[in-house]
Amino acid sequence: MNTKDLRINGPRLWESIMELAQIGATPKGGVCRLTLTDLDKQGRDLVVKWAKEAGMRISIDKIGNVFMRRAGKNPHLPPIVTGSHIDTQPTGGKFDGNYGVLAGIEVVRTLNDHQVETEAPIEVVFWTNEEGSRFVPVMMGSGVFAQAFTLEHAYAAKDIAGKTVFQELQRIGYVGDEEPGHHPIGAYFETHIEQGPILEDEKKTIGVVTGVLGIRWYDCVVTGMEAHAGPTPMKLRKDALQVATQLMQEVVACAYRHPPHGRGTVGMVLVHPNSRNVIPGSVKFSVDLRNTTDELCNRMDADIRSVAKHLSEQTGLGIQLDLVSNYPAQQFHQRCVESVRQASESLGYSHMPIVSGAGHDAVYMARLAPTGMIFIPCKDGISHNEIEDALAEDVTAGCNVLLQAMLNAMQA
Amino acid sequence: MNTKDLRINGPRLWESIMELAQIGATPKGGVCRLTLTDLDKQGRDLVVKWAKEAGMRISIDKIGNVFMRRAGKNPHLPPIVTGSHIDTQPTGGKFDGNYGVLAGIEVVRTLNDHQVETEAPIEVVFWTNEEGSRFVPVMMGSGVFAQAFTLEHAYAAKDIAGKTVFQELQRIGYVGDEEPGHHPIGAYFETHIEQGPILEDEKKTIGVVTGVLGIRWYDCVVTGMEAHAGPTPMKLRKDALQVATQLMQEVVACAYRHPPHGRGTVGMVLVHPNSRNVIPGSVKFSVDLRNTTDELCNRMDADIRSVAKHLSEQTGLGIQLDLVSNYPAQQFHQRCVESVRQASESLGYSHMPIVSGAGHDAVYMARLAPTGMIFIPCKDGISHNEIEDALAEDVTAGCNVLLQAMLNAMQA
Repeated sequence: MNTKDLRINGPRLWESIMELAQIGATPKGGVCRLTLTDLDKQGRDLVVKWAKEAGMRISIDKIGNVFMRRAGKNPHLPPIVTGSHIDTQPTGGKFDGNYGVLAGIEVVRTLNDHQVETEAPIEVVFWTNEEGSRFVPVMMGSGVFAQAFTLEHAYAAKDIAGKTVFQELQRIGYVGDEEPGHHPIGAYFETHIEQGPILEDEKKTIGVVTGVLGIRWYDCVVTGMEAHAGPTPMKLRKDALQVATQLMQEVVACAYRHPPHGRGTVGMVLVHPNSRNVIPGSVKFSVDLRNTTDELCNRMDADIRSVAKHLSEQTGLGIQLDLVSNYPAQQFHQRCVESVRQASESLGYSHMPIVSGAGHDAVYMARLAPTGMIFIPCKDGISHNEIEDALAEDVTAGCNVLLQAMLNAMQA
Repeated sequence: MNTKDLRINGPRLWESIMELAQIGATPKGGVCRLTLTDLDKQGRDLVVKWAKEAGMRISIDKIGNVFMRRAGKNPHLPPIVTGSHIDTQPTGGKFDGNYGVLAGIEVVRTLNDHQVETEAPIEVVFWTNEEGSRFVPVMMGSGVFAQAFTLEHAYAAKDIAGKTVFQELQRIGYVGDEEPGHHPIGAYFETHIEQGPILEDEKKTIGVVTGVLGIRWYDCVVTGMEAHAGPTPMKLRKDALQVATQLMQEVVACAYRHPPHGRGTVGMVLVHPNSRNVIPGSVKFSVDLRNTTDELCNRMDADIRSVAKHLSEQTGLGIQLDLVSNYPAQQFHQRCVESVRQASESLGYSHMPIVSGAGHDAVYMARLAPTGMIFIPCKDGISHNEIEDALAEDVTAGCNVLLQAMLNAMQA
C-alpha cells in the first residue's frame, strides 16, 4: 500500500477522545482535569496504556513530559514528533490538547494496522501543564524542554494550596529520569482545535498554521480626581473613566491600524471607587496587543504609547502604561507549513493559511526543530469552555493531515 | 440695634462645629457618626443640650426629626425654620450637615446676645438619616416629613446587620410623639458647604442656591460574546466593552449637549468575565444624568436612549438601559432665593447663583414651604471625605447670610 493512501480510523480516534474525556468529566459535558492532580494521573496512565498496547516505548523527563516512541527503520534518525497536552482548564472541553495527543496515538495505530515501517522513529508526546490554570508559567513542560525557563523555576511553582510542581509530580509518579531537552526532535507537528472562529467563518476544514502571534501585555492606570457626580460641573471634572474609555477604544483602533492580523483587547477593568454617584478617581485596565511579527508588535507598542501620551497631555490626567509580559512572535518552519498544506490539498480538504492567536507547546518546539501546526474548526470558535465541540469529520481530517505531514517529513 | 447690623459670633460657631466633630472623630480629622448609632445619640444629645441652654423648646416627631424652637412675638405665626442633619458618611467630614444645624443654633445665640425678639418663632431642625449610608432611602427624616414615602416604609429599613430604623430609633430614645409633617413651616433655609468646586473656582463666598438638579439613575447592560483575545480576529468579535465604552463617552457628551447645567457620569463599571485575555462578554455600568428641570432631564433621557438604540443597531450587540431612580428637579422659592441674594449683597460678600447638584433635606422642604439654600465653598470641592474642609471666614459669612435671610423672611 502506498502510504499516500493511508487513512486513519476516525471512529477509533473519536472513541479515544470520548473515553479520555470521561476522566474528570463535568455534568455540562466538559472536562476538569487540572495538571498533576489524581485525575491527571489517571489520564496519563490511560494514554500510556494505549501507547504500550500500540507497541510504543515510554520515556519520561524530569518535568513529567511523556514521550511514546514507535521505532523506525533507522534508529539513528531523530524522531518525527507530534503531541500536545492532556491537562485541561477548570471548565475545559474534551478537545483542547487531548485531540493533539490522541491524534498522534491514532497515527501510530494506523501505521500498525497497515504494518508500515517508517524510516525515522515516530514519537507522541504529552507536555506537562500546558494550561497554566493550576501552576504558572503556562506551557511549562515544553518551556522547560526548550529552556525558556529552568527546571528549578518550574519545580518551585505553587498552586493556591501551596503545593509545588515537584511535590505533585512525585506524588503522581511522573518524575522521569531524562534531562528535559535531552531528546532529539527531527520535526514537530501539533494538531489542535482552532479555539477561534475563523475556519468556521470561512468554511474551511484545515487551518495551515503559519505561526503564532507575538503578545504584549500591559497594565494601564489613568489617574484623575474622584468627586461627587452631582455638584461637580463637567468642565471642572478630572474623570478618569472618561479618559480611560477613550484609550480603551484606541486599543481596538490600534489593532485595526495594523492589519490584517493585529489584535487589541481590553479584558479587565477596575474602576475606583466604583460608586454610582462618584466620578471615578482612577481606572486600571489591561491591554493585550498581538501581531504576527515582533516588528509589528513594536509598532503597535509605539502607536498606543503615542496615543496615551497625547491623551494625557490633552486632558491633564496621568496615564501610566506598563509592559508586564512580552511573548515574541514565532513563524513556523516553511517546510513543515508546506507539508501540512500539501497534505490537506492531496487529501482534498478545504484549507487556508491561519495564524494562531494563542500560545501552544508548538511555539517552544519551533525554537528547537522544524515545526508546524494543523488547526481544525471548533463549534462557534468556543474553547476553554465545557461546551467546546468539534465535528467528527473535522477531527478525522486533521488527523489524516497529521499522518501525511509526518510521513512527508520523513522524506524531507 | 437695627437687626440689619447684627453679626453672628464666628469663633463661637466654629468652636461648636469642632466640638460636635469630636463625637465620632476619625484619626484623619474626619467624622464617622452614622445615623441612629450610639455616637449619633451623643451628637443629638449635645445639640439638644446647646439648644436648651439657648432657651429653646424641643419637640421630636416619630421619625426622630428634632425641632428646637425659639419663641417669637406672635405664637400664631408659622416658624421660620432652618436646619440640616448631623449624621455623617462612614468617612465623612466635620461640615456636611453639621454646619447647617449649628449655624441655626448660632443664629439663635446671636439673637439672644442682642435680646432681639422676632415676630415669628424661629426653629432649628436636624433631620434623621440624611446620608443614607446605614439605612436607605437617603434624606429619610425630611422625606417622611414631606410624605415622599411613609413612616412605616422608613421604620422597616434595615442596616446590613438586620437592625431596623424603628428598633434603633427606640434604642437611642429618639422616637417622638409628633406625627411627621404635622409641624407648620413658614419658610425654610438651609446652609451647607457646596460639596463641589464651583465657588472656589469662581472665587465667590456665597452660593445663592436657585434649585436642585433632577437626577435620573440608570443601569445599563451591554451584551456581546466572550471569546479568547488571541484567536479571535477583530472583525469577528462581539466585544461588549468596545460598545460599552462608546456609550460611556456618550453619557458625558449628552451632558455637554444639554448645557449649562447638564451632568453625565458613569461611576460604576462591572466587566464580565474581567480577565486579561478574554474579550468581555458583557459589561454592566451605571449612568447618572442630571439637569435643572424635569423637561431637560427628559431630553437627556431621550438623547441617551436614542444613542443606545443606534449603537445597538449599528453593532448588533444588545444594550439594555433601565431607569432605576428618578428624583425630580426642584426650583427654590423666588422670594427665598432673593432673600439670600440680598443678604449676601448687603453684607458685602461676593456671591453667585448656583444650582445644587446633590440632594439635601431642603429639596423635600421645598414641597411644603418657601425654601432657600446658602452654599459656602469647601476646600477643593471635596466632601464625603475625612479631609473635607472649609474656611472659618466662609463659615461665618454663610451664617450671617442665614441670619439676615431668616429675619428678611419675617417681613415678607
